[in-house]
Amino acid sequence: MRTFVPFDAVEPKTRLSPVLSSDERHAFARVLLADVLDTLSACGREPTVLANAPLDIDTPVLVDDRPLTDAVNGVLAEKEGPVAVVMADLGLATPEALSSLYATDDDVVLAPGRGGGTNAFCARHPSFRVDYHGASIRDHRAIAREIDASTETIDSFRLSTDIDEPIDLAELLLHGDGQAAEWLANAGIGLEVNEGRVGVTRL
Amino acid sequence: MRTFVPFDAVEPKTRLSPVLSSDERHAFARVLLADVLDTLSACGREPTVLANAPLDIDTPVLVDDRPLTDAVNGVLAEKEGPVAVVMADLGLATPEALSSLYATDDDVVLAPGRGGGTNAFCARHPSFRVDYHGASIRDHRAIAREIDASTETIDSFRLSTDIDEPIDLAELLLHGDGQAAEWLANAGIGLEVNEGRVGVTRL
Repeated sequence: MRTFVPFDAVEPKTRLSPVLSSDERHAFARVLLADVLDTLSACGREPTVLANAPLDIDTPVLVDDRPLTDAVNGVLAEKEGPVAVVMADLGLATPEALSSLYATDDDVVLAPGRGGGTNAFCARHPSFRVDYHGASIRDHRAIAREIDASTETIDSFRLSTDIDEPIDLAELLLHGDGQAAEWLANAGIGLEVNEGRVGVTRL
Repeated sequence: MRTFVPFDAVEPKTRLSPVLSSDERHAFARVLLADVLDTLSACGREPTVLANAPLDIDTPVLVDDRPLTDAVNGVLAEKEGPVAVVMADLGLATPEALSSLYATDDDVVLAPGRGGGTNAFCARHPSFRVDYHGASIRDHRAIAREIDASTETIDSFRLSTDIDEPIDLAELLLHGDGQAAEWLANAGIGLEVNEGRVGVTRL
């Protein structure tokens, strides 16, 4: 099965701008991407990065400068056979968690993200298409129903955690053991522990 | 194994006050509790509610008006044999997800919550104690290490989702199928879909 990892090479991780500078966001996004690619390799997958601009890395890159939904639908329409798509910011993903995406034979396997997102999926049905706007997990379930595709949902905290907002950095500091967690600690980002859920701060 | 479900019967769900009135928070907390108790029953468990005030329900109730950490440590110190503790606001818990808590023989099994919490655990080591202040999952790992307890971590989006803040209501609306999701819809709480993660609003 072909696995694609969409990556914003132009203006990555804008929602982290309250805590990271533009240069830091570029660097951090690359480290997150490297972690996800390493984890996919550890699952025996050979991913292709689906980037909106050329990228100088050792992994094959397919450049498509359209918005995310169009680029992913381009892949789904053009490629023969099943396709998996895994977001580039799943900094808590482990080989075990990602393997679950490939473990069933359902037509559509969805890994929900926090806040209504779809952090990874695997599609064996040729008519499945994506729509990443709004509550995409709800839309993807509806699309799967419309095409009579059997659907499986992966229950994984690790896959549900995309590193998109400052609060997500706390999850990486608490549960991550890849390069991205190390990068954050080196950048002086640490946990801020108050009552309720923890946050992050510059140390 | 004895399973306890801590429940704040005095002032529940205060962090939901931006969207729910005091009466609504009391009612909603009871419905969440009922969902969790039903789910535990569906796993073949016979839970006891650990409440800070008497509660008129069909499930056995142990009243302890001390703060959460002290009340849970009281149970851990007094009860013979293994003990499981499952939070009362895990509105997305399914029998399958909760069963994973009981499925291994490790001394301490932890289900992390978002933001550093510990949403459920199972302890077979007599010296394990809890500390729910701050980033409790980190502290619970440290406590397990100190007593040389073997530790397993459950990777579950459903168990990681405690319904504590307004944003969590969106998860319940998107992924819940119990009474609590229905209660919310009946109370006129609906999804608010913008760019990025979804939120909730009064419809």
